[in-house]
Amino acid sequence: MLAELSSMRKRPSQPTSENRILELLERRYSAKSPLLEKGIGDDAAVFRPRAAKEYWLVTTDALLEGIDFRREWTTPRRLGRKAISVNLSDLAAMGAKPLFFTVSLALPRGVSERWILEFHKGTTEPEVCKGAQLIGGDLSSSQSGIIISITALGESLNRKVLYRCGGRPGDLLYVTGVLGRSAAGLKLLRSGGIGSRSRAGREALKAHRTPEPRCEAGIWLAQCGLVHCMMDLSDGLSVDLPRMCRASGVGAEIRLADIPVFAASAGWNCDPAELALHGGEDYELLFAAPRTKARLLEESYPSGFPRITRIGELNRDVGKVRLKEAGGKIRTLRERGYDHFRAESSGLDSGPQQKLRE
Amino acid sequence: MLAELSSMRKRPSQPTSENRILELLERRYSAKSPLLEKGIGDDAAVFRPRAAKEYWLVTTDALLEGIDFRREWTTPRRLGRKAISVNLSDLAAMGAKPLFFTVSLALPRGVSERWILEFHKGTTEPEVCKGAQLIGGDLSSSQSGIIISITALGESLNRKVLYRCGGRPGDLLYVTGVLGRSAAGLKLLRSGGIGSRSRAGREALKAHRTPEPRCEAGIWLAQCGLVHCMMDLSDGLSVDLPRMCRASGVGAEIRLADIPVFAASAGWNCDPAELALHGGEDYELLFAAPRTKARLLEESYPSGFPRITRIGELNRDVGKVRLKEAGGKIRTLRERGYDHFRAESSGLDSGPQQKLRE
Repeated sequence: MLAELSSMRKRPSQPTSENRILELLERRYSAKSPLLEKGIGDDAAVFRPRAAKEYWLVTTDALLEGIDFRREWTTPRRLGRKAISVNLSDLAAMGAKPLFFTVSLALPRGVSERWILEFHKGTTEPEVCKGAQLIGGDLSSSQSGIIISITALGESLNRKVLYRCGGRPGDLLYVTGVLGRSAAGLKLLRSGGIGSRSRAGREALKAHRTPEPRCEAGIWLAQCGLVHCMMDLSDGLSVDLPRMCRASGVGAEIRLADIPVFAASAGWNCDPAELALHGGEDYELLFAAPRTKARLLEESYPSGFPRITRIGELNRDVGKVRLKEAGGKIRTLRERGYDHFRAESSGLDSGPQQKLRE
Repeated sequence: MLAELSSMRKRPSQPTSENRILELLERRYSAKSPLLEKGIGDDAAVFRPRAAKEYWLVTTDALLEGIDFRREWTTPRRLGRKAISVNLSDLAAMGAKPLFFTVSLALPRGVSERWILEFHKGTTEPEVCKGAQLIGGDLSSSQSGIIISITALGESLNRKVLYRCGGRPGDLLYVTGVLGRSAAGLKLLRSGGIGSRSRAGREALKAHRTPEPRCEAGIWLAQCGLVHCMMDLSDGLSVDLPRMCRASGVGAEIRLADIPVFAASAGWNCDPAELALHGGEDYELLFAAPRTKARLLEESYPSGFPRITRIGELNRDVGKVRLKEAGGKIRTLRERGYDHFRAESSGLDSGPQQKLRE
């Protein structure tokens, strides 16, 4: 879930308004049903249908025009791809296999039938939806922009699901892929670079407009039995890592030099490290594994999957997230990713990179 | 699903734009998964988790400010009740028991924390959500009005699910409750009657602002084994009955004199029959039962449930829906309920009563 009802157990300092609301909702409406494994508070909710062999997972994410996307920066098909991908990323983050999804669309006048059909070509592209099938939804009219809300359902494999809350002090922290690439793509779009033809430019635009959920890697990581906790990086490492720490009741220290940044963005007047920490919308996986299993994990992780990089470790400093900078200086990592309720709604384009405007 | 991806099998004449899109989507993305019983095309999708005893159902419905509601006409708590109720109505329409739901909220600046918490008091009121539990969702900012998208999950009982498509020529048509009451409530709101103190006025306002999904009746009708097909009345009888007829490959004739109208609306400059036929948002159940079982059905239907009324019958005139008027004259029933893509989006308040402005 993009800005999900999530992980808001203990929040010692300066809660964001959004986090505070989520915390209150989690506290009020925590799991009661015997069929429910996990309600509010993770990338997806987890339940077990009576007599079923596997757990089922459900997650919801919305994309709003003017907040999360601009029509002129993408195509309906790409938008469909992104809308389903951000949902499948939540299932990937728990190691689940995507099965079904519903799409709720609200459209302003002037959006053509062709646009809707192209959008759904995107949501249903086989290489994107990874076997998940469109099974319903609703259509309504909008008085402002396009509103997309998708709910995805998935199934565990052998009941192995990874939560945010399993991290322990001493665990090593990893991420998949490269961080800050999507934010770099947004930066390009903002500066009119939509036609960018450089390889790095195309890569950044692709990461922003059609991010790839890490479904296969997520399933592998859940199945391997070597990982304690996992989540996806939707709002930025500086926002999401504290969520994992709060859920697990631990602290963390990460090393800036070890974070896999998107170096090419330096050429576009960006700080790759800033984008990696605060950019958001990377939809990579963040996970923690016990130190004793680290070597086995790294050696057995399939080479064809997006690479994994060790970026730091969990510790006993509950609720504290620190960043070790290049010179060895250690500072508290400020949460500067996207918060919908702190963001000024003045025509910003894409949510999680809110801080690009600062 | 409010304007669901639904039942658009054959559409011989004058497809509405919305119906046409739904028809195209159903054709393109019809059921493929072996776990799927019913995809696009009914009130909810139906799937069967591996090894599970029961079917599971999922449905999605959105409410948009300025289209489906006005903030000044309701309270956050009432709005929460309505938002969950319209989803549970879809589960009721197939005879399923509600279990879980997720809520995707997009809120403009200025909506307070208190508003959100009150809204969720409404979505989670035990007598409203009938045992269903809030298990997740997402929160984002909106540049225009409040946007609510709920997805509800339910479970069958003894795998008995009623679809729209099971109607047969000769079946008798029934509805629960009274039709046109919600539209009368909207009419009152529009004319400034929010403070109406008459009993009928309060009843109409309640029907519009906090409709009651017919969960118990829906489950009973699915369990009794005497009903061929069922759906809920969300967009108006004149729109929804043709949907049932198309799905079942039949025609229908209903008798105006037999329709349970909300007679009190005549005193507010309304035509109760018009509101019953075209008003929408009644969230009553429409169902068909074989003539041979009609007496047994009527006699065994629990007296504590909303009354059921026989309004006509299905016939072999595929795709034709006729209305027998008071004088015996028979005319084709024009579809004048709500269509999101035909509606003028000029500040209308509540969807399905669009035609009130004609």
